[in-house]
Amino acid sequence: MRATVIHAPGDIRVEDAPEPKIVNPTDAIIRTVATCVCGSDLWPYRGLEPVGDPHPMGHEYVGIVEEVGSEVSNVKPGQFVVGSFATSDNTCANCRKGWQSSCLNREFMSTCQAEYVRIPNAHGTLVATDEHPSDELVPSLLAVSDVMGTGWYAALAAEVKPGSTAVVVGDGAVGLCGVIAAKELGAERIIAMSRHESRQKLALEFGATDIVSERGEDGIARIKDLTGGIGADSVLECVGTSQSMSQALHSARPGGNVGFVGVPHEVAVDGQELFFSQVGLRGGPAPVRRYLPDLIDRVLSGHINPGKVFDLTLPLEQVAEGYKAMDERRAIKTLLTP
Amino acid sequence: MRATVIHAPGDIRVEDAPEPKIVNPTDAIIRTVATCVCGSDLWPYRGLEPVGDPHPMGHEYVGIVEEVGSEVSNVKPGQFVVGSFATSDNTCANCRKGWQSSCLNREFMSTCQAEYVRIPNAHGTLVATDEHPSDELVPSLLAVSDVMGTGWYAALAAEVKPGSTAVVVGDGAVGLCGVIAAKELGAERIIAMSRHESRQKLALEFGATDIVSERGEDGIARIKDLTGGIGADSVLECVGTSQSMSQALHSARPGGNVGFVGVPHEVAVDGQELFFSQVGLRGGPAPVRRYLPDLIDRVLSGHINPGKVFDLTLPLEQVAEGYKAMDERRAIKTLLTP
Repeated sequence: MRATVIHAPGDIRVEDAPEPKIVNPTDAIIRTVATCVCGSDLWPYRGLEPVGDPHPMGHEYVGIVEEVGSEVSNVKPGQFVVGSFATSDNTCANCRKGWQSSCLNREFMSTCQAEYVRIPNAHGTLVATDEHPSDELVPSLLAVSDVMGTGWYAALAAEVKPGSTAVVVGDGAVGLCGVIAAKELGAERIIAMSRHESRQKLALEFGATDIVSERGEDGIARIKDLTGGIGADSVLECVGTSQSMSQALHSARPGGNVGFVGVPHEVAVDGQELFFSQVGLRGGPAPVRRYLPDLIDRVLSGHINPGKVFDLTLPLEQVAEGYKAMDERRAIKTLLTP
Repeated sequence: MRATVIHAPGDIRVEDAPEPKIVNPTDAIIRTVATCVCGSDLWPYRGLEPVGDPHPMGHEYVGIVEEVGSEVSNVKPGQFVVGSFATSDNTCANCRKGWQSSCLNREFMSTCQAEYVRIPNAHGTLVATDEHPSDELVPSLLAVSDVMGTGWYAALAAEVKPGSTAVVVGDGAVGLCGVIAAKELGAERIIAMSRHESRQKLALEFGATDIVSERGEDGIARIKDLTGGIGADSVLECVGTSQSMSQALHSARPGGNVGFVGVPHEVAVDGQELFFSQVGLRGGPAPVRRYLPDLIDRVLSGHINPGKVFDLTLPLEQVAEGYKAMDERRAIKTLLTP
């Protein structure tokens, strides 16, 4: 089969690789219908994370089940399935409390930009749709497996409630999905922080009520202006840098909440600053599995359309261009079709 | 009048000082019935915080109103009142949301270890009891003005709920009041981390179900043992050091919450560690004003007795011994009577 391999920063290739096989009785093999490039894939691509030996890439996927292990009964060959970047058995103590992304048997996906993928913990990870979805719905179902699930978690971690004011820091695919989530959860005012016209436009289409293009002190001042001088009830931090975390913490009011879903890179939170801010802070890899049935329903009913974050669709063979376009911010997010 | 002044680390004296006067129309002057020494007072006493010029000390108080400014109508001379270490107007945008300790006009109290005290923002800070309480109730009402209110906030910030498992890190007066709060809020299992027999005993009396005397890795392992391998739902961090914060974060399960109320000293939280822990974190100076009516009721009805944390009572003139006893851990908390 054809599969993506990163060799060094900036060096992404599609190569021949052996097809994956069932290893454990809880595995499934899927034929990839769509996969994509994640903002977090850009960290090694940009050399900001070590690449090490050449290795496969990709953790987002929807596909058709090819084969299941002997202990997988929730899905069967031929079904269209959606999963999560973090696999889970859905039965351990953490899963039972709804924190499947901290499953005691968790394995993170990392080989999905390929024609076939082995899904560990398939029994507790995959959710099948009743029918094969139409082609137009595939991008949104793919989004649910990661960026939409992550935006949803950010909004819940930030405790967005009906009537609340939400700020979204970051205008990447996750941030834009965070806007959708804040809207769905009833936020009355949704302030998207974005400096890019195409992303501002999509944020407004997704439900943002205000755009703030300033950053740093100016950005904080603008947020305060828009929130009665005290800051927002909820802030979704969807970047993962020290600057974005600071922006987020200073944009929330005392008693407000920051949900942070950008994997932090060299971020340290000062204890005394956090203390006096009285801001609640929760982050992490999203427990997408918890949200899958609900989010799949919202997509299939046409209620949300997070697939719009894919503004570039390429065949898998052109994965290198997919990374390049995102790196150069020519694309928000690249969808790949094997 | 007689008032406490710190001159240098270890050098606490009672001196003659002018009686306070009304400065602003929202002020009140109270005659102190009881005041006390706070764990946070020990930071400058121990030289761990700069002392600077000699200055008054103390931020906990109950007393009798002597005089009120022209804009104070909620309390009147002769009434017994309870307040908070953080004064609030109780009308600003933060106060209206219940975060009075971030009042836009907040002034922290700092002169309470004295015979008379000026209370700024008296109109939004002081709560009067219907009658003068009996002498036996005074220590518990004094505790409400700070340590009990702070323990209550820690439990709420840690989202203690009926049936949950709570860990209390720190066996000082705040930690012990945190045990009371966790019990009142319905925690089923309350694990107090303490190495001191007298404090362990009081924790058990207040409602702790388990005592863990280990710290660090061993302490975390013991907590995991007691919580099905995953950690506690709620952790109350009541110390404020890097070690205690780490203990707290590692004692909570994914999806659990840490409420931290020890003022952090040289604490930095690693973003990536917090991210993957999926633990929610909220700290700050407790919005005691929000809880005052409820906590005063619980004390007056005899339902809670946080005054038991005072295991040493001294006349104000012996304040130096009060600090010394706490510094040497001979006393949990010293009550002072002017």
